[in-house]
Amino acid sequence: MTTSPLAQPFPDLPPVAGVSLQVARARYKAWDRCDLTLATFPAGTSVAGVLTNSRCPSPEVEWCRRALVLGHARALVVNAGNSNAFTGGRGREAVEAIAAAVARHAGCAPSDVFVASTGVIGVPLPVDKAEAGLAAAFVAPATTWLDATTSIGTTDTFPKAASTTAIVDGREVTLVGIIKGSGMIAPDMATMLGFVFTDAAAEPAFLQRALADANARSFSCITVDGDTSTSDTVLAFATGAAGNAALVDDESAGADAFRAALADLCLRLAKLVVRDGEGATKFIEVAVTGATSDRSAHRIAMSIANSPLVKTAVAGEDANWGRVVMAVGKAGESAERDLLTIRFGNTLVAREGQVVAGYDEAPVAAHLKGQEVEIGVDLGLGDGRATVWTCDLTHGYITINAHYRS
Amino acid sequence: MTTSPLAQPFPDLPPVAGVSLQVARARYKAWDRCDLTLATFPAGTSVAGVLTNSRCPSPEVEWCRRALVLGHARALVVNAGNSNAFTGGRGREAVEAIAAAVARHAGCAPSDVFVASTGVIGVPLPVDKAEAGLAAAFVAPATTWLDATTSIGTTDTFPKAASTTAIVDGREVTLVGIIKGSGMIAPDMATMLGFVFTDAAAEPAFLQRALADANARSFSCITVDGDTSTSDTVLAFATGAAGNAALVDDESAGADAFRAALADLCLRLAKLVVRDGEGATKFIEVAVTGATSDRSAHRIAMSIANSPLVKTAVAGEDANWGRVVMAVGKAGESAERDLLTIRFGNTLVAREGQVVAGYDEAPVAAHLKGQEVEIGVDLGLGDGRATVWTCDLTHGYITINAHYRS
Repeated sequence: MTTSPLAQPFPDLPPVAGVSLQVARARYKAWDRCDLTLATFPAGTSVAGVLTNSRCPSPEVEWCRRALVLGHARALVVNAGNSNAFTGGRGREAVEAIAAAVARHAGCAPSDVFVASTGVIGVPLPVDKAEAGLAAAFVAPATTWLDATTSIGTTDTFPKAASTTAIVDGREVTLVGIIKGSGMIAPDMATMLGFVFTDAAAEPAFLQRALADANARSFSCITVDGDTSTSDTVLAFATGAAGNAALVDDESAGADAFRAALADLCLRLAKLVVRDGEGATKFIEVAVTGATSDRSAHRIAMSIANSPLVKTAVAGEDANWGRVVMAVGKAGESAERDLLTIRFGNTLVAREGQVVAGYDEAPVAAHLKGQEVEIGVDLGLGDGRATVWTCDLTHGYITINAHYRS
Repeated sequence: MTTSPLAQPFPDLPPVAGVSLQVARARYKAWDRCDLTLATFPAGTSVAGVLTNSRCPSPEVEWCRRALVLGHARALVVNAGNSNAFTGGRGREAVEAIAAAVARHAGCAPSDVFVASTGVIGVPLPVDKAEAGLAAAFVAPATTWLDATTSIGTTDTFPKAASTTAIVDGREVTLVGIIKGSGMIAPDMATMLGFVFTDAAAEPAFLQRALADANARSFSCITVDGDTSTSDTVLAFATGAAGNAALVDDESAGADAFRAALADLCLRLAKLVVRDGEGATKFIEVAVTGATSDRSAHRIAMSIANSPLVKTAVAGEDANWGRVVMAVGKAGESAERDLLTIRFGNTLVAREGQVVAGYDEAPVAAHLKGQEVEIGVDLGLGDGRATVWTCDLTHGYITINAHYRS
């Protein structure tokens, strides 16, 4: 797989106190690479998560949803190459077997173990391979963020991660996030699998609210193909090793700083997923203002970002703003054609329902030749606003997805 | 443009008494072909229509919506090469000028003139070209259905039309439909431009109900790319020349026969549009049963039919039924993963949330190699059902749409 032209270099990432990483070859597919990733945490680690809204979720998603109620984690297992989704009772048994095996190795309760899997749908995860992989991972040396990020990837063309820090209760806390995903990427929660690790001390309920808020402005604002995975999972683990007074609510010292840092980290991770969108050659920002509500603005922005005709026009570097009008019109949200304003980059293209007087396509064409394209729409109706991110739709997407399973 | 591999030969079409067809070169684009189509009707012709639900419709759509209230038609003008959508006051003036010019030529009221345009968005329709084209059309000899159908096309790769008959009040009435469209095809009413002509006598209100019902089971059940046009228009004209007692309501003699014939005709026209879907190599039928309601079944079927991952899997002849599960899950409708049944063609693939015991992919692979693919989903929840039609997503779609305007 050729690296995405929008790829960014893997960053230098600091360790997160309390987090230990190990990888192993479970060989879920006929490949010679690490495909099982294990992260372990000290007792007292809080966990929060946002999971796919799919009505047909994987058993891993159902497992995490139940375990999140307790709010504590000792281990995370990520399987790459097999999503274990839509595998009935055998799929559920595989997840339970993994949690039980990790509990034995780590000396914790199965409900402290979080599991996420990604890959083909409909093939039960082989329990024997998972157990052998786990046994190998538990005796493997501690590994790097780069190895762990690479091990959770499937069709990803580059490893995606980011970090940040915040001052909480007078102490610097570290947040590191790793993420995978490039297709079957749609809103309605998130991208495929993302994990945030921090040494901050935070109560599970606080961490959950902070993650949900960050998600609403990051993973829920990206789309590659409008297709929502059965397995989308974002989990945040807080080990507490930084020694700050635990974050309990928004009045806690450093709560704002931590929430801002988490939101920033999630947004950077989400944008990295768009940059690895299958076949992507352009990174597209769609900003909608003047809508009747933020929710309405979000829906209109997603209608534009998911439109195959808008996405192919950007791929062809074609300033076909009429397709933006079409996508606004089909969103089913309040819109007044004759109040609509559209811009590409900084160039106003249409105002009050028609092309601007003396429209010069040259600066728009120049903007579209770049790798980063901005589409702005103002509806002229209210204060609602939203920004979402997507990529173009190219021959690369077709080539990858007409032959993914083989 | 290469003819779609799914094309069907142009049928023999009978004349419809009262309908006269003429075409002309308005030269809306730099091409040497007829691009203005004129149909004229005798006094007393009824008209009905269904129009795009886009919130940013073309002025033609707004014009037709107003004129339909009166329910009578003397002329139809179709412009190809310029949709006149999103052109502000100048676009409205162009439509008014066309209606006025036709009214002068035909000796009728402007509100008896129906106008539809298709092509690029955002360029005002040049009134001088339209008026010259109209003048030429009015003196042109009467032409054929094939010429008229070809003249309304844009990116269409083959002319699409169908006919049928019904016995109404003891008389055989004829219905002929012509249609154009291949991209920017989505539900929420219809395909781009479709016109049905009949010599039956029918009151406008009856014709409108019959057309709306037919639309719900035809044009509203197809999708090529999920993108809804600003200009979607289907109009039905009934000249009354067959001399039957006018159809007034469902108690009228022949009402059922006429409605059935109209529904059949609309479905055949809709399927022809799918067969000319941009880049299409496979005709796909998606049948959903067992949903909690027909409406829910329709939404799930459309989620499958619009999924880029399902469409690319069919393009690649890949029996990747996991993507069907994904598309069911993302539809946001009631679904129970462990009750789900999926079939490709006549082969059951998955039952009760997992692959069937002893699944043999060979018959599914053989089915996918054909040009007509059937995907069946049973939700196991209720009696709701819906069938929709779409095509696959291929390199051809990307090639056409990354360079459409040029």
